[in-house]
Amino acid sequence: MTDPRSYIQTILPRNTPVAKEGRAFAPANIALCKYWGKRDEAFKLPLTGSLSVSLGRLGTHMRIRPADRDSLTLNGTEQAPASAISRRLFGFLDLFRDPGTALAVDSKNTLPTAAGLASSASAFAAAVLALNELFGWEADSDTLSQLARFGSGSACRSVRHGFMEWHPGERPDGSDSFATSLDADWPEFRIGILTVSNAPKPTGSGEGMKRTRDTSALYRSWPDQVTGDLPLIREAVRERDLNTLGRTAEHNALAMHATMIASWPPLIYWSPETLAALHRLHALREQGLPVYATLDAGPNIKLLFEHPSAHDLLREFADLQVVNPEEF
Amino acid sequence: MTDPRSYIQTILPRNTPVAKEGRAFAPANIALCKYWGKRDEAFKLPLTGSLSVSLGRLGTHMRIRPADRDSLTLNGTEQAPASAISRRLFGFLDLFRDPGTALAVDSKNTLPTAAGLASSASAFAAAVLALNELFGWEADSDTLSQLARFGSGSACRSVRHGFMEWHPGERPDGSDSFATSLDADWPEFRIGILTVSNAPKPTGSGEGMKRTRDTSALYRSWPDQVTGDLPLIREAVRERDLNTLGRTAEHNALAMHATMIASWPPLIYWSPETLAALHRLHALREQGLPVYATLDAGPNIKLLFEHPSAHDLLREFADLQVVNPEEF
Repeated sequence: MTDPRSYIQTILPRNTPVAKEGRAFAPANIALCKYWGKRDEAFKLPLTGSLSVSLGRLGTHMRIRPADRDSLTLNGTEQAPASAISRRLFGFLDLFRDPGTALAVDSKNTLPTAAGLASSASAFAAAVLALNELFGWEADSDTLSQLARFGSGSACRSVRHGFMEWHPGERPDGSDSFATSLDADWPEFRIGILTVSNAPKPTGSGEGMKRTRDTSALYRSWPDQVTGDLPLIREAVRERDLNTLGRTAEHNALAMHATMIASWPPLIYWSPETLAALHRLHALREQGLPVYATLDAGPNIKLLFEHPSAHDLLREFADLQVVNPEEF
Repeated sequence: MTDPRSYIQTILPRNTPVAKEGRAFAPANIALCKYWGKRDEAFKLPLTGSLSVSLGRLGTHMRIRPADRDSLTLNGTEQAPASAISRRLFGFLDLFRDPGTALAVDSKNTLPTAAGLASSASAFAAAVLALNELFGWEADSDTLSQLARFGSGSACRSVRHGFMEWHPGERPDGSDSFATSLDADWPEFRIGILTVSNAPKPTGSGEGMKRTRDTSALYRSWPDQVTGDLPLIREAVRERDLNTLGRTAEHNALAMHATMIASWPPLIYWSPETLAALHRLHALREQGLPVYATLDAGPNIKLLFEHPSAHDLLREFADLQVVNPEEF
C-alpha cells in the first residue's frame, strides 16, 4: 500500500503548468442511491456504490493560474491561507503539483448559499477539471473522476453532467473506484430544492459517516439496502420510470438517515420543519401527485418529480427552487 | 404445532367461574429495551427479548363477573358487541373459558387519555389477573405472564409492577416466552410522560412490526442491537446507573424507530413536535442535566431521569407528567 500522493503521481504525465490558466465548471450532484461510509479513509474509497444526478447550472466555476504565492478567492473574497477551506484546497492541490508550483485559485459557487447544498463535490471536481487544462493532462473522464475523489468522495460524480454511477471498486489504490455516466437523458426530470434551514450542520458528513460505521448496529445492513436499490434506480433512470426511481430513492435516503439515527450519540439531521415538509409530501402523494424526496446529511429536502408536477408543487412549496439537470 | 386455544387449555385447571367476580389492576409498562417484531404471529412470540418498567398507578382496573350475556363497559361506557375493542377482548377471553360462559367486563383506565400510551398491555394483563381470581386458577406469575402474552405481546410485562424482562423463549408453543421481575428497586427512578400529540396513530404497532420485518433491510440488524443493549440495561437497573440505562435505552429506542423509518412505505411516527422536544432534550443533556428519552410507536416521548432532576424538567416541559414506578 502506498500513500495517495505517490499513487496519484504514477498516473499523472505532468505536475507543472503548460497553459496560462485552467478554467472549468462542475455541477453539484444529488445522490439518488446514497454514499454513506468509507472502506478506506485516506483514499476515500466507499463501502458501496452510489448513483447521482447533477444540478444543471448549480455548481462551481473555477479558474486556476500560476502565481507567486498560493491564494484562494471564494465568491470574490480572498480567504486567509490558514483558513480551513484554504488548507483543505491547497492540501488537495499538493497531491498533483510539484513543490514550489504556486497557484492562484478563483472559485465561484452558483449554489444558493442558503440551500445547504454541499459545494465540496462541485469544487473538487472543478479543481481537477481546471488542472487538467492548466497542466495539459488530457485525461479521460474516468481518470478525472478518480482524481476528484481524493478531494471529497462524492466529487467523483461531479466531473460530468447527468446521471452518474460511482463504482466502488475493489483495489486498495482505488484505480477502479470512479464514476461513469449512465448516458441517459430524461428531459422531463426535475429536482426541487426545498430549503427548510440554513443553519450549519452540527456534524459534518465525514465525521457522521465514521460515527455511523463505529456505533450503529443497523449500519451492518446498509450494504444490503444499496445492493437492492442501486440496480432498481439505474434501470428506472434508463426507463424514465419516475415512480420506481422516486420510491427507491426515497426509501434509500430514509434508510441512510435511519443508520444515522441509530448511531450514538444520535445523528438526527432533521429539524421539525424537515419532518413537517416530509409529512406534507406524503399527504400530497396520497392525493395522487407523483413526487418523492431525497435527503442528505442536513435538514433540507430535495424533491424528485417530472415537469408536469412543477406547477402544483410550486403552489404547495412557495420557496421551491426547481432544477432541470439538462439545462446548463 | 397446535393453535393458541388448544395449547392454553393444556395448562389451565378450570374454564368456568368459581367466584362471584374477579378484580385486578395491572400497570402499563414502558420498554427500556424494545420489543419490535414477532417470530410467530398467532402465539405472539417475539424475535428478541425486551425489558420494561411499569407505570405505578397508571394502568387498567378490571372487574369480570359471570353474566347472562357478554358485555364490556370501558371507562363507564358500554361498548357495542360488534366494536373492534369488544371483539378483541372477547376473542381473547374465548381462549380461556368454556363455550357458553358469558362474562360482564368492567374496565377503567387510569392512563391519561391524551397521552397516547398503549392501554392494551395493562388491559390484557388485568384481564388475566382477574380471570385467575374468577376461575380460581392459582397460577404463578410466570404462567399469568405467558397467558397475557396472547392478548398483546407486551402485556406479558404488565402482570407485575417494577422492572420486567420478557424472555423470548425458543419453543413453538411459547411455554418459555414470558416476563419475570428483575426484583430491583430504585426509589429515585422517574419516568416523565411528554405528550406532544394525541392524534391516533396512522399505523398500529402490530401492522407496523409486520411492515418493518417485511420491507426494512436494516431490521436484519435489529437483533444485534438488542443483543448488545439488553444486558447493559439489565445491569444498569441493578446498579441504579442512570447514565448507562438512559444512554442504552435511548439508543435502543432510536434504533427501533430507525428500523421503521427504513421501511416502505416509511413508518415515521414522529411529528415535528417530537423532533423539537428531542432536540431540546439533547441540548439540556449537553448542559449537564442527566435525562434521556425513549419513544414507542407514536409521537410522544417518555423521559428517563432521577427524582432530583424533576424540578428542572418541569420548568422546561410544563405539561410533563412525572411517574414514580414504585408508587402504586
